[in-house]
Amino acid sequence: MSGVMNFKNCGSVLITGANRGLGLQMVESLASEGFSPGKIIATTRNISLSQKLQELAKKYSNVHIVTLDVVDQESIEKCAEEVGQLVEEEGLNCLINNAGINVEADFHSVTAEKMIENFHTNSVAPLMITKAFLPLLKKAASRGGSGIMRIQKAAVINMTSLLGSVELNWGERANSFKWYPYRTSKSALNMVSRCMAVDLESDGILCMAIHPGWVRTDMGGSEAPLSPEESVASVLSVIGGLTEKDHGSFLNFTGEQLPW
Amino acid sequence: MSGVMNFKNCGSVLITGANRGLGLQMVESLASEGFSPGKIIATTRNISLSQKLQELAKKYSNVHIVTLDVVDQESIEKCAEEVGQLVEEEGLNCLINNAGINVEADFHSVTAEKMIENFHTNSVAPLMITKAFLPLLKKAASRGGSGIMRIQKAAVINMTSLLGSVELNWGERANSFKWYPYRTSKSALNMVSRCMAVDLESDGILCMAIHPGWVRTDMGGSEAPLSPEESVASVLSVIGGLTEKDHGSFLNFTGEQLPW
Repeated sequence: MSGVMNFKNCGSVLITGANRGLGLQMVESLASEGFSPGKIIATTRNISLSQKLQELAKKYSNVHIVTLDVVDQESIEKCAEEVGQLVEEEGLNCLINNAGINVEADFHSVTAEKMIENFHTNSVAPLMITKAFLPLLKKAASRGGSGIMRIQKAAVINMTSLLGSVELNWGERANSFKWYPYRTSKSALNMVSRCMAVDLESDGILCMAIHPGWVRTDMGGSEAPLSPEESVASVLSVIGGLTEKDHGSFLNFTGEQLPW
Repeated sequence: MSGVMNFKNCGSVLITGANRGLGLQMVESLASEGFSPGKIIATTRNISLSQKLQELAKKYSNVHIVTLDVVDQESIEKCAEEVGQLVEEEGLNCLINNAGINVEADFHSVTAEKMIENFHTNSVAPLMITKAFLPLLKKAASRGGSGIMRIQKAAVINMTSLLGSVELNWGERANSFKWYPYRTSKSALNMVSRCMAVDLESDGILCMAIHPGWVRTDMGGSEAPLSPEESVASVLSVIGGLTEKDHGSFLNFTGEQLPW
């Protein structure tokens, strides 16, 4: 729980893909608990279709909804501009690249189009979004003092998956979830995350990738062992407790390191 | 050298991207040495632009050139059909997915289009090509007897890069070659390679990824420590010596395992 408490001292958190699943749960958990950050910025492709998110924004004054289509560069830039006006001189402390899709396909049904669609949303979008928000992240980082990396200063968190671990895709584990587009997009995201960690370090911006567990969301299905509440409580606790040593890492929702 | 000798007993080898660089060198090395396989099938996007390859085909009767644009599904299928007519009932023993590009871009210059272009050629194409050649690989595998995996039976070799290792993209090593599209595409290829290894195992088809070293080709530049001849001699020796234990692996051109 100590990690989650750290969000209380965090000026602003932005969560992409917040209209449902883990993104929505993150917004709700952050808003409803005593450790709520200053501003919770929830992005979604189509605000009018995000009823639950609208209810949260009505209930909690620190929840702000901004439109973002993660595969549309114009939309990304417009979103960064709007968020800039929201956070003003404080900048953005914590960007959570959560939006993701699973274009299900096995060896026989996979096509180039399916591979590219999943790659664009899950691997390329977090990179293009981070690029667009870099000025806001830098602003927050420069206000956070030198030295220690943590989410209250500036951080980029990429929601990845254990299914993106090439090493773990072997033996017993490899016999389920033979999803080429999804697995490949998450391996690619892990590399993007690591590349960004290298490049953002000099600005004092922490960057890492986290696996939220297998969760009962639309994507995870009803057989998954974790509820969204359980996963998000654990994920937020890990994110809240991140320090320099976690920069560039690939962590499980339990906080343990995962193999690439 | 023992590994290279194994190509002598290999009915057919197909090499994509054989118009220049490592692909061209592989064709030349395989054709000119005493360990030449039965049929060397060299693919290139535009035969009329591949003068050196045409010279090799004129000089060595076992070198066959077939047109293939690796990002064009129609071209992939047409190529598989032509190769089917070439190899007939013997099938295809060894598919070397060598074609690759480097769409150079760092954090500041990278765009979604550059990421997708590099991903399509380096990660998606080897998957779509392997799918198209699966019937020919299966044919060869079924003739190779049960049990042992090796290139004389059936194998898919993916030319990857050490730059695709997420683990090695850290510290001193991460300060050069900050190529987002290329690094990401090779990490993605490593996952594709591992996924295919899982799926091709029951057909007795060996699948792995190999890093050819840093080589003085158009892509590698003039500062690279290895000549194409040196790299290819080493790579072919490793490929020729592959067995079951290398199935699903990521090897250096020296034969050692690399971390994902």
